[in-house]
Amino acid sequence: MKPPVVAPDPATLACPTPAAPPDTAQLAHGGGGRAMHDLLTRRILPALDAPTPAGGSAAPAAPERHDAAVVDLGGARIALTTDTFVVSPRSFPGGDLGSLAVYGTVNDLACAGATPSHLSCALLLEEGFPLDELDRIVASMQRAATRCNVRIVTGDTKVVERGKGDGLFINTSGVGLVPAGVVIGPRQLRPGDVVLVSGDVGRHGVAIMTVRAGLSFETAIDSDCAPVHELVAALLGAGVVPSCLRDPTRGGLAAALNELALDGHVGFEVDASSIPVSPGVAAVCELLGLDPLHVACEGRLVITVRAADAERALATLRATPGGHAATRIGTVTGDGPGRVVLRTTLGTRRILDLPSGQLLPRIC
Amino acid sequence: MKPPVVAPDPATLACPTPAAPPDTAQLAHGGGGRAMHDLLTRRILPALDAPTPAGGSAAPAAPERHDAAVVDLGGARIALTTDTFVVSPRSFPGGDLGSLAVYGTVNDLACAGATPSHLSCALLLEEGFPLDELDRIVASMQRAATRCNVRIVTGDTKVVERGKGDGLFINTSGVGLVPAGVVIGPRQLRPGDVVLVSGDVGRHGVAIMTVRAGLSFETAIDSDCAPVHELVAALLGAGVVPSCLRDPTRGGLAAALNELALDGHVGFEVDASSIPVSPGVAAVCELLGLDPLHVACEGRLVITVRAADAERALATLRATPGGHAATRIGTVTGDGPGRVVLRTTLGTRRILDLPSGQLLPRIC
Repeated sequence: MKPPVVAPDPATLACPTPAAPPDTAQLAHGGGGRAMHDLLTRRILPALDAPTPAGGSAAPAAPERHDAAVVDLGGARIALTTDTFVVSPRSFPGGDLGSLAVYGTVNDLACAGATPSHLSCALLLEEGFPLDELDRIVASMQRAATRCNVRIVTGDTKVVERGKGDGLFINTSGVGLVPAGVVIGPRQLRPGDVVLVSGDVGRHGVAIMTVRAGLSFETAIDSDCAPVHELVAALLGAGVVPSCLRDPTRGGLAAALNELALDGHVGFEVDASSIPVSPGVAAVCELLGLDPLHVACEGRLVITVRAADAERALATLRATPGGHAATRIGTVTGDGPGRVVLRTTLGTRRILDLPSGQLLPRIC
Repeated sequence: MKPPVVAPDPATLACPTPAAPPDTAQLAHGGGGRAMHDLLTRRILPALDAPTPAGGSAAPAAPERHDAAVVDLGGARIALTTDTFVVSPRSFPGGDLGSLAVYGTVNDLACAGATPSHLSCALLLEEGFPLDELDRIVASMQRAATRCNVRIVTGDTKVVERGKGDGLFINTSGVGLVPAGVVIGPRQLRPGDVVLVSGDVGRHGVAIMTVRAGLSFETAIDSDCAPVHELVAALLGAGVVPSCLRDPTRGGLAAALNELALDGHVGFEVDASSIPVSPGVAAVCELLGLDPLHVACEGRLVITVRAADAERALATLRATPGGHAATRIGTVTGDGPGRVVLRTTLGTRRILDLPSGQLLPRIC
């Protein structure tokens, strides 16, 4: 007997991921959510014989955003990281492609516990790109580098034909020295660790989206685009070695916590009412149908510390520029690997998953 | 009195650089010749407060292709380099984008005297790029990394919209340890140093051009795409510390010698009849109107050594895989800075200048 044919109800249809051939690159593959995670863990990292979180080849491969690799070179522990920046538009309230490219790499180094010191800069120009805009962006890079006390010591310049690029893309890679005794990373996470954030979340993504959507507000929402290395240095200086650090960029706080939970074989429980979101960011997210926990930051830090260090860490962060709004948002749990639970403002508990679908393309 | 009006003779008109607004990026800005050199030395490097060859801010800024910067980190001397690879087509006789991206960065590290050890890999995908081609290119990267005994330890993945990229661009950056006592670079050049090349020149550019032009030959001309770090290790192992090393990529041997002459404040005199060019490369260059000395290599090394070391260096290179065709091509002179003289096969002497005009776009 055939089942009865039922016409689909359009109101119940949903397609968060755009229909597309599954065997080609989609914007979602670069968005920081589920699709990117799958591309990396199933295709790229296994093929690259990349380091795995548990140190064994049988373990699942680590997601890409380990922020930086720490390697031993000549007795020194060196952090190495890379990022290509394709943000669109190239200028936005609170920053531009140049400052973003420097802070992004500085922050990845800082999240490995390194003191960022030297950067490379690879420019990928589209034929016809105005050189005066290039001058402005390069000057912005240098100002950002000066602010972070890093030097741009090597570089590369390529030009592709008109229509084969999009103005300017910048790759910055960087190195920094990791102090002796400092081991920071997902594998150091332990149930009971306290989770802090250094400030309100979602500003960068909202700043970009308002420019793209042509929205204007009485008070512009600035990106949080900023370096976080001073926060890390302040913690280490106060004798607090965080178990883990992560700057929640693509995919926002939700992606950062999910990646850490998977890599660290732990769970998280965070309290929605504790997570700082500015009223402006909340309003724009409401308007655009976004969850602020999925929206990128570019100057925030997720910090996990042993419970005994939590108060000292908070006091240190709050006394450091860029950390005055630091707050405690939850704890590391033994529910793992990869289970992130959000206590909602209604008091219920729900899974806070890796964002899926296309997310916000070209946010960084 | 007005001068008489003379109609221009079309036969005498020449326009090696395409007419274009001077204030926008041109393909020539990425070609490795005069335009790129000017962009870097006049606009980018001064703005970046980048290291200068003479160590002083009043000195002219160093061209970009210092191959790698050497920095001190925790007592270790670390070489850092970066390159974005945009080669078109992505596959060519003798290599592909993946192997090129690994060897290119390995070779830049080797040219600083470093032992290449760790690489980053930043993929920049265009929406719609076939993932099976991505798999092949990533596998090629891993094979190349294994051959060079380097590990790809960190990475990044971005996706841009269809029409805003060109399939796949790859940035690789890398680090390596420079042994104590090894100082290699243009500033070490001295008049009287002997100039060697590790093999025949121009293969890579010709391999790319024949694919683009749809030319086919009885015997395909393979790119020389290969790592050169073993040649450098062999020299150091034999007790020969070269004064300078350079892999002659964009702009070929001519650009490499001109950059070294400018940075090192010296001159070069090289002998055209000594410079190895394979008959196939010579024939294609003749056909396409190219000078083989301006055509890129991707697996060759220009080596300068003190005269007393020349024979030992040659013997060492010839006994090492990839170096059997090494040969002496000239000497470093006191005519400087920046004067490169070619003794032609006719016995005359002419200036071998930085290539100008558009050159071969997207060769690497």
